Amino acid sequence: MKPLTLHLLDLSVPGGTITRHDPGEALIRVDDLGITRGDGIFEVAGVLHGVPLALEAHLARFARSARMMDLPEPDLDLWRRAVLAAATEMADQDALTAVKFIMTRGIEGADSAPTGWALGFLADDPAPAQADGLDVVLLDRGYRHDVADTSPWLLQGAKSLAYAVNKAALREAKRRGADDVIFLSSDGYVLEGPSSTLIARIDGTYITPPVTLGILPGTTQGDIFADLARRGVPSRVDTLSVNDLKTAAALWLCSSTRGAAPIRTLDGRTITVDHKATELLNADLDARKG
Amino acid sequence: MKPLTLHLLDLSVPGGTITRHDPGEALIRVDDLGITRGDGIFEVAGVLHGVPLALEAHLARFARSARMMDLPEPDLDLWRRAVLAAATEMADQDALTAVKFIMTRGIEGADSAPTGWALGFLADDPAPAQADGLDVVLLDRGYRHDVADTSPWLLQGAKSLAYAVNKAALREAKRRGADDVIFLSSDGYVLEGPSSTLIARIDGTYITPPVTLGILPGTTQGDIFADLARRGVPSRVDTLSVNDLKTAAALWLCSSTRGAAPIRTLDGRTITVDHKATELLNADLDARKG
Repeated sequence: MKPLTLHLLDLSVPGGTITRHDPGEALIRVDDLGITRGDGIFEVAGVLHGVPLALEAHLARFARSARMMDLPEPDLDLWRRAVLAAATEMADQDALTAVKFIMTRGIEGADSAPTGWALGFLADDPAPAQADGLDVVLLDRGYRHDVADTSPWLLQGAKSLAYAVNKAALREAKRRGADDVIFLSSDGYVLEGPSSTLIARIDGTYITPPVTLGILPGTTQGDIFADLARRGVPSRVDTLSVNDLKTAAALWLCSSTRGAAPIRTLDGRTITVDHKATELLNADLDARKG
Repeated sequence: MKPLTLHLLDLSVPGGTITRHDPGEALIRVDDLGITRGDGIFEVAGVLHGVPLALEAHLARFARSARMMDLPEPDLDLWRRAVLAAATEMADQDALTAVKFIMTRGIEGADSAPTGWALGFLADDPAPAQADGLDVVLLDRGYRHDVADTSPWLLQGAKSLAYAVNKAALREAKRRGADDVIFLSSDGYVLEGPSSTLIARIDGTYITPPVTLGILPGTTQGDIFADLARRGVPSRVDTLSVNDLKTAAALWLCSSTRGAAPIRTLDGRTITVDHKATELLNADLDARKG
């Protein structure tokens, strides 16, 4: 990723303020709980020609994560303005850009306001993954499928800054010669990728696992399911087993910066890539106007 | 905590350099992986009269965490110098101080050197917890006792910056009217606190759970066991069940900034506080010369 534009929020004043900064400027204190504890939340919205995609879904998920982590409720009007300010500055970019927006719990011990910013950046080109497909491995996430219900302090389903495990899982995938990961619960339920939502097509129906498993509501997956509904293609939210994945007609990992990326191998086993369906899904995503 | 002194490491140059900064200065970029992903490691060493305690144990654990997270091997001579520089500046403090040192994976996408610093700060007074004891609740950590072995990408046992769950567990404890937490594995093994090591005394023997359960090697606990050995008191590393805790003669949570803090209730059930033993343990800890 290449940073292009940075807007800092001041959440300590009524209504908040937004100021523009050089994206390479150091703005964060070493005792910010975002860096000392991963104690904060984030979203990444794709941006096409200056327009943030699925912005309302990202804002809603941002507020959901804040609630799950007992953070102050974000002023979504202010955050929307910050994201739009960053996105607008990237309107002349032909390639896919994105805005990452972050809110941390602020300075440790200071009872301070949250720290917040929106960083616009040039995303990696999603075309190769969409065209060639991904080699994916299954990795244990270690939790039962029901921990979001039994043990909410494990923050499963919150998009927190504490993503070290997600990065470690991707390193494990590389070690195994793969590109990406699908996490499984310790009791065998198919969950999500470290930064993506899984969609499987089985018997002509597009299926994604339910958020009750402690996974994120997928913003890109949400738009895909809306597009499918418009085209009269059946979809549903349902649990999936490893065997479901092995016998699925096609699989995709979906995210804001990669769109719908087909899976071409799963633990080394070939998965059929449906290029035509993939192109349709991504054409729909690219046609979004916000 | 109140920041007192800050030393920034430059790990991009051969041998590294250390420079002094105002502790309130913003030094971190918003695209540092430490803040965007909790992708880094930390240690907190207590400091008495300018002398860091258990420093070699902290440095060894720092290197261990780096290995577990595939981070570059820290130059321990350089880190030792940074911690000593911070500690020396706090030599005139009569109260307990501490140095937190952190290494992150650096700037995202830049293939950069790690970011590193040592922050000296005034710790909270450990005396009340040592004298009055802690109200503690048991909380599920969600993982089986053997995940460190089966699923190393879950980073159990690495002291990473991704501590949002530890903070959420402490908030859950507060909601239940308690001060602190002992985590249990999903299959019932007693683990550790969110920022402390558990010691139980059972039949006259001091017992702490093994690191093979995916918990941190306790630096303060290590010094306590060395002190016990010197005094001829038996100790051992062994697994503990919830029933062991309920029937233990005494329980302590041990950490660099709180010493040995006795537990006075566990899930609301009274635990006998052995004030004399607690004073002995902490007198030994306070007598450390580094």
